[in-house]
Amino acid sequence: MTAPMDNRSEGLGMYDLVAQLFPICRSITGDGVRRTLEIIKAHIPLETYEVPTGTKAFDWTVPKEWNIRDAYVLDPRGEKVIDFQRNNLHVLGYSTPVDKTVTLAELQEHLHSLPEQSNAIPYVTSYYEERWGFCVADLVRNTLSDGEYRVVIDSELQEGHLTYGELVIPGSSSQEVLLSTYVCHPSMANNELSGPAVATWLAKWIAGAPRRYTYRLVFIPETIGSIVYLSRNLNHLKEHVIAGFNVTCVGDDRAYSFLPSRNGGTLADRVALNVLQDTHPEFKAYSFLERGSDERQYCSPGVDLPVVSVMRSKYGCYPEYHTSLDNLELVSPQGLQGAFNVLRDCLEVIERNDIYRTTCLGEPQLGRRGLYPTLSTRTSYNSVRTIMDVLAYADGSNDLLDVSERIGAPVLSLLPVIDTLVDSGLLSGVETED
Amino acid sequence: MTAPMDNRSEGLGMYDLVAQLFPICRSITGDGVRRTLEIIKAHIPLETYEVPTGTKAFDWTVPKEWNIRDAYVLDPRGEKVIDFQRNNLHVLGYSTPVDKTVTLAELQEHLHSLPEQSNAIPYVTSYYEERWGFCVADLVRNTLSDGEYRVVIDSELQEGHLTYGELVIPGSSSQEVLLSTYVCHPSMANNELSGPAVATWLAKWIAGAPRRYTYRLVFIPETIGSIVYLSRNLNHLKEHVIAGFNVTCVGDDRAYSFLPSRNGGTLADRVALNVLQDTHPEFKAYSFLERGSDERQYCSPGVDLPVVSVMRSKYGCYPEYHTSLDNLELVSPQGLQGAFNVLRDCLEVIERNDIYRTTCLGEPQLGRRGLYPTLSTRTSYNSVRTIMDVLAYADGSNDLLDVSERIGAPVLSLLPVIDTLVDSGLLSGVETED
Amino acid sequence: MTAPMDNRSEGLGMYDLVAQLFPICRSITGDGVRRTLEIIKAHIPLETYEVPTGTKAFDWTVPKEWNIRDAYVLDPRGEKVIDFQRNNLHVLGYSTPVDKTVTLAELQEHLHSLPEQSNAIPYVTSYYEERWGFCVADLVRNTLSDGEYRVVIDSELQEGHLTYGELVIPGSSSQEVLLSTYVCHPSMANNELSGPAVATWLAKWIAGAPRRYTYRLVFIPETIGSIVYLSRNLNHLKEHVIAGFNVTCVGDDRAYSFLPSRNGGTLADRVALNVLQDTHPEFKAYSFLERGSDERQYCSPGVDLPVVSVMRSKYGCYPEYHTSLDNLELVSPQGLQGAFNVLRDCLEVIERNDIYRTTCLGEPQLGRRGLYPTLSTRTSYNSVRTIMDVLAYADGSNDLLDVSERIGAPVLSLLPVIDTLVDSGLLSGVETED
Repeated sequence: MTAPMDNRSEGLGMYDLVAQLFPICRSITGDGVRRTLEIIKAHIPLETYEVPTGTKAFDWTVPKEWNIRDAYVLDPRGEKVIDFQRNNLHVLGYSTPVDKTVTLAELQEHLHSLPEQSNAIPYVTSYYEERWGFCVADLVRNTLSDGEYRVVIDSELQEGHLTYGELVIPGSSSQEVLLSTYVCHPSMANNELSGPAVATWLAKWIAGAPRRYTYRLVFIPETIGSIVYLSRNLNHLKEHVIAGFNVTCVGDDRAYSFLPSRNGGTLADRVALNVLQDTHPEFKAYSFLERGSDERQYCSPGVDLPVVSVMRSKYGCYPEYHTSLDNLELVSPQGLQGAFNVLRDCLEVIERNDIYRTTCLGEPQLGRRGLYPTLSTRTSYNSVRTIMDVLAYADGSNDLLDVSERIGAPVLSLLPVIDTLVDSGLLSGVETED
Repeated sequence: MTAPMDNRSEGLGMYDLVAQLFPICRSITGDGVRRTLEIIKAHIPLETYEVPTGTKAFDWTVPKEWNIRDAYVLDPRGEKVIDFQRNNLHVLGYSTPVDKTVTLAELQEHLHSLPEQSNAIPYVTSYYEERWGFCVADLVRNTLSDGEYRVVIDSELQEGHLTYGELVIPGSSSQEVLLSTYVCHPSMANNELSGPAVATWLAKWIAGAPRRYTYRLVFIPETIGSIVYLSRNLNHLKEHVIAGFNVTCVGDDRAYSFLPSRNGGTLADRVALNVLQDTHPEFKAYSFLERGSDERQYCSPGVDLPVVSVMRSKYGCYPEYHTSLDNLELVSPQGLQGAFNVLRDCLEVIERNDIYRTTCLGEPQLGRRGLYPTLSTRTSYNSVRTIMDVLAYADGSNDLLDVSERIGAPVLSLLPVIDTLVDSGLLSGVETED
Repeated sequence: MTAPMDNRSEGLGMYDLVAQLFPICRSITGDGVRRTLEIIKAHIPLETYEVPTGTKAFDWTVPKEWNIRDAYVLDPRGEKVIDFQRNNLHVLGYSTPVDKTVTLAELQEHLHSLPEQSNAIPYVTSYYEERWGFCVADLVRNTLSDGEYRVVIDSELQEGHLTYGELVIPGSSSQEVLLSTYVCHPSMANNELSGPAVATWLAKWIAGAPRRYTYRLVFIPETIGSIVYLSRNLNHLKEHVIAGFNVTCVGDDRAYSFLPSRNGGTLADRVALNVLQDTHPEFKAYSFLERGSDERQYCSPGVDLPVVSVMRSKYGCYPEYHTSLDNLELVSPQGLQGAFNVLRDCLEVIERNDIYRTTCLGEPQLGRRGLYPTLSTRTSYNSVRTIMDVLAYADGSNDLLDVSERIGAPVLSLLPVIDTLVDSGLLSGVETED
């Protein structure tokens, strides 16, 4: 269906985008999100939306917009022991502004560190209660001696907007495949600059050929962003989306992971499981009970979109998660490429997942079509077994994924078989209403 | 829902009732049943019914009423080697009267003993064919020497009645929960004075607070009693009973056991399995093919009531079963209390087993309700996982037992979560037609 | 239902028929088929049909008719190194006539042998492309030295007919059980003279007593024969056939095998599995993906007949398959008898597989019918457990196979129980529309 692509260049391209976006201090609102979306627009024609502070969205309200210019802590000797300019994780997300001198004891109440991972700066936020704070490696925290500390956070928390990006790539059908990723994390790489990078390259791939389905890609802040997006688009999404993927944690090279939809069994679940079992049989299948990203909203009762996650190392399940160690060394061109390939395979299968029906009763005479050995020995049937099995189960009720499951052959391996049989006139797609 | 109760006192109370009832010689009819029900009436307001001999009930006919005053065997030296006054199991249940002298050989034809359990008097009956006989420990039987024996059974078998008790405790709904137990066994404790005792204490507990469902408790002779009861109440029961429990073998402290309904999957099956898996995961699950009590009638084709058995050591599955060794030492306050607790838990869950639905789309903002940490760290989600999982599966189609099974959390543990969420306005019960 | 038969004589009778048919050179058309059917007609009143060359059947066309008188190869010294008269497998099936002298090199291009099984003559055909060739043991092939070879095949390939046999044994119902076997293989015994022999003896057994169902037996060439037969009878078969068996590979004594219908779960699947699990629990269950005989046609999409195969050693799964080693030593009277017994048991169960319903509510009082011990001890229930279990699950929705599966008792063992209960008036068959 598509021309072969240079895998290496895709992985490198995605890695370059991750690296370019890495220094920006993102949060669920603010200029970090805007700058991120602007950079992505250099690759794909995202439409951006601004939703005002105070807008109601289901049970939520769009919060104030947060922006930050600088933050640091000066120790009693006037040295910058904590410096936002060196790592934007140092500031508690959504910190209110502060500029004062405090004792070490008071400072400690505003510090966050990980004693069990003493070299890592943790990622901590306080979106919905106003606080100030700093995040710091526990090793550094332990060096702080008594005395007066100057704490400065030059931030603003005020009426503004929540920003998100959207790209709709029309196909011949109005039915849609949804790809959702988030752009609200500061300098972390697997979770979460890998998602926007892979989603961007998937958009390029989708746009590179005519598609059957319409593709909807959204680049949003996590949780509040998907809630806002759903509250504005719910009816349309429920009517049109046949499969969706939450694109997150797709950058390292240590694992493949799958998280199903709430009740499982959707087209997205089926295709992802089929492709992963084929291409990465060692993948780790999680339960929906282990969810933790925007499928929490997409799959919530009454929303019920068929959204799954195909990941590399899943959020919460790798030691660097939500710390400064989730950095550009953790992700790799190979890691990004692997996730891209699986998701692209899923999309390709979705495009092809018709219900097929044989065009004759009984087995067709493959021999006169050059598809069966004319000399019948005791092994001749084996050479055409997959063709025969596809014909046997293409009965007008099984879709291609069903056929794949019934005959125990990966769906990707069936695509050329289907082409051959359709070209020979032995198989035809059953009309469905899309 | 209910005030905490002193566990020890319940167990002791039930044990005292078992001990009080133990000496009475019960059978499927007769004054033993009447006296038993009278004693129980001191605890709960049972209504008693008398059904005349000869009454047709489905395929059966109420038999003659049997009463017995005394029975013994005098050996050649005139010594009472078998004495009904010492243990009422010594007489074959429903023995016709006899008073004659027989040879040892003839006596042997009327003796029943257990060579493999030589110190136990077996429990044997002959309800539907007129016979006389004695049951005796094999050890004793083996000491009998040749000579003339006087055999006396001072019993009556004549037109009379079958007696049973019933208590209906009305709830706000006309839908009913059925508890059935039997009062036809002579001096045996686990099978079967534990059942009437636990059923009596359950009735006290039910009556101790307003209930949603109506509770129907029946104290009947086994088999003929349930058949008679069904024949008189079938339409009402089929229309109203949503769950039922055959309360039997609930007195020892060695095991928990479960016997399902005929096809499984009823509300009674689901709640009993959920509670047992939670509170006594080592419980033994039997098949309906291993049935042997009144579920044989309640679950028969065309009757099809949703009746299960939650037991301690199941009838037929412990060595003392149907012998004189099933005595007051076999059962204990702790044993009775354990069964009472499980059955009470089941009733409590049935009262609460609504279908719930979230009141908003997407996840609610728990933070502003004090249900979610305002500081978001990498572990903050874990603290609210159960709340989130309940919200995710309370989708208006799953009842609480479904939710429990889907999220892998015992239903008992969900009751306070449901309270919190309903109080917060985040969850509401879906109206059903009860 | 039927008089006991002398097992030994059936097996011997079938073996004799196999031996009588063995020398005939059969193919998918020609006089070999006709002579085979004539011999079978001495046992059962087959109707034979002739379908002209060129007749369309679904995607296929009836090929030219092939007949052969002789074939041989003379080596440079004039010795017959390959001789059709000694084994008809020596000639490639459907070989065109040839009579010429060739070099060893040219001869080799027309020889087929099995290097890995060097003493076996392979069975090879070329039905749909015109060729000539010889099949030979690899041991012999390796002895051929350079020189001129005379090759003679005295065959004819011309307009003619495809021949098949059919026998319909009417029962009281117009619903049918289909038995299909094939008569197109030259001198091979398990695959495939065992099939026609066992089918012939099944026909005798069926005709030996009044039957509920109508039985349709077809003796056809494989693949093209079933396609032709289906194309002429499809509507009738789809309307009437409730179960079918492809009778193939039923002659050796090494294994029992089962191959299901395309989606499984039909009456034929259920009865065959139940009987095999009971009588030959070591049987090998294959998947439909391992099919290779006429179920390929009978179970094809749109045809969808409920056809399974109950076999001894399955085609393709024993070393002698499709070689001269599949001979009269491979099959045995015992082997044929075993397959016959299983298939006869299946037919007997199908005849009896009603939906039954108890005639009373609750358990019936078995005691007054002499079906329950009047003396009730702690083991008395065990003696009637199967009766009680049948009564419990004969609820007007389960058929006898369902009951068997639910209660874990082989369906064959339930037939006398059903008789007893029906005779006692405790069970009645539910009217169905056959």
